[in-house]
Amino acid sequence: MKLRTDEIERFERDGYLFFPSLFSPEEIAVLLAEVPRIYAQRRPENVRERTGDVVRTNFAAHLYSAPFARLARHPRMVEPVAQIFGEPVYMHQFKINGKMAFDGDLWQWHQDYGTWKADDWMPEARAMNVAIFLDEVNEFNGPLMFIPGSHTLGALDAAHDVTTTSYPLWTIDHDTIRKLIERGGLVAPKGPAGSMILFHSCLVHASTANLSPWNRVSVYLSLCAVSNHIRRFKRPEYIAHRDFAPIACLPDDCLLREYEVALPWRDGTPASALAPELAG
Amino acid sequence: MKLRTDEIERFERDGYLFFPSLFSPEEIAVLLAEVPRIYAQRRPENVRERTGDVVRTNFAAHLYSAPFARLARHPRMVEPVAQIFGEPVYMHQFKINGKMAFDGDLWQWHQDYGTWKADDWMPEARAMNVAIFLDEVNEFNGPLMFIPGSHTLGALDAAHDVTTTSYPLWTIDHDTIRKLIERGGLVAPKGPAGSMILFHSCLVHASTANLSPWNRVSVYLSLCAVSNHIRRFKRPEYIAHRDFAPIACLPDDCLLREYEVALPWRDGTPASALAPELAG
Repeated sequence: MKLRTDEIERFERDGYLFFPSLFSPEEIAVLLAEVPRIYAQRRPENVRERTGDVVRTNFAAHLYSAPFARLARHPRMVEPVAQIFGEPVYMHQFKINGKMAFDGDLWQWHQDYGTWKADDWMPEARAMNVAIFLDEVNEFNGPLMFIPGSHTLGALDAAHDVTTTSYPLWTIDHDTIRKLIERGGLVAPKGPAGSMILFHSCLVHASTANLSPWNRVSVYLSLCAVSNHIRRFKRPEYIAHRDFAPIACLPDDCLLREYEVALPWRDGTPASALAPELAG
Repeated sequence: MKLRTDEIERFERDGYLFFPSLFSPEEIAVLLAEVPRIYAQRRPENVRERTGDVVRTNFAAHLYSAPFARLARHPRMVEPVAQIFGEPVYMHQFKINGKMAFDGDLWQWHQDYGTWKADDWMPEARAMNVAIFLDEVNEFNGPLMFIPGSHTLGALDAAHDVTTTSYPLWTIDHDTIRKLIERGGLVAPKGPAGSMILFHSCLVHASTANLSPWNRVSVYLSLCAVSNHIRRFKRPEYIAHRDFAPIACLPDDCLLREYEVALPWRDGTPASALAPELAG
């Protein structure tokens, strides 16, 4: 999969590209069938909502689930990102966000690169967020909201929010958000399961709570240019990965055929991946 | 304003009617200009969000604000409701809900009649909710969500939710909501300031948080058929009114001309309206 020039120009202007139905229902079914098993596990990679036992976000499933390990090597996702950066990429972060029916809580306004810079010492905003919808995203189940063009301002000042949701986040103040939206507007791409969004790691985004009876499970991957790898290992490895080897893609049918993949964390998270290391 | 037969049939089937831009921008401006003054007051009628000092809902402004006192007697709102019930109506509840930019919290799934029946001993669901948009309502600022047809099931079982938001509410369980939405779908009427929704007091509704920079102030009035007045005065009078006199409408231009209106609570809430009375 190769991006056209007009797509690259649109990405540079707006900070995101939306590809409705990029993956087929059969491909998505393979992934979605794995989610209940992953969410049911009692392991540190599952962060639950403050209101109960429902999973808010799961980390690093590509290291212990074969279907997600294959997705992590999918050319439809990896190739356009490597094309934009002009170099190979590695997996910086891998999440399956629940935003489950009725219980899925909101995510406040933030940029992802802010955290990666502050906590992980990632040198530049040369990492790409990829969202892949495992469920339909509609107006009722808490779609991602983007402020187009907000990525052009680089890393914005942020404050550490440890109270409003169950996951700590560097969030951006209301006055800044108001100005950014006056300037760039607000969009919420919606579409069927199998749709993909590429978005810049400085693009400001949020999502509201899901009060609907429809889950909104999405995979969020962050692919970093290899030369731009993180310099500090402050956060546990299951959140911010330390393997900077370029992703070697599998064939395009890798979600439908059982290509062999390594699953190093299948039997549990290694102790070294739980503890922070201040070396780096 | 007279409803057509097809509108009445639609109301009976869906449980709501939507009238985009029923009030003009000039009429709405008069109301909106009053809101900051009302919200700034330190009186029990202002219920604030759990996160801070922002007003979530204001009660009974029609008893101490001239523009809202005129709205409470507006023929475009009162006449269609009296037409549906076939008798005069009185004001059971009068609210200005903030759902303010960034801070407006969600409202869980509920029916209004459930509370009126349980707490106020209102005999039948012969009271109508009216929502009038003082701000544009869009996909980003927490629109009301309705389950069409859910009013036909009458009062549903509910549980008293005193934890998830700052205002206690009788809410409906997730399994019931799931079944109702499978049967009737889900809608969220959106439109410019000045739009009006009439909705059945058994129609199940909710609204999500407002993370946008746009306020979503709406007036919610509940007009009850006079013969169906409440029988118990358990809740304070500023929440559930005890004056069952039929509303006498003002002329259609009453938001633009200063018709005289009584403002009995202008100088504060009478002690009798704060205390519950278990007589009734």
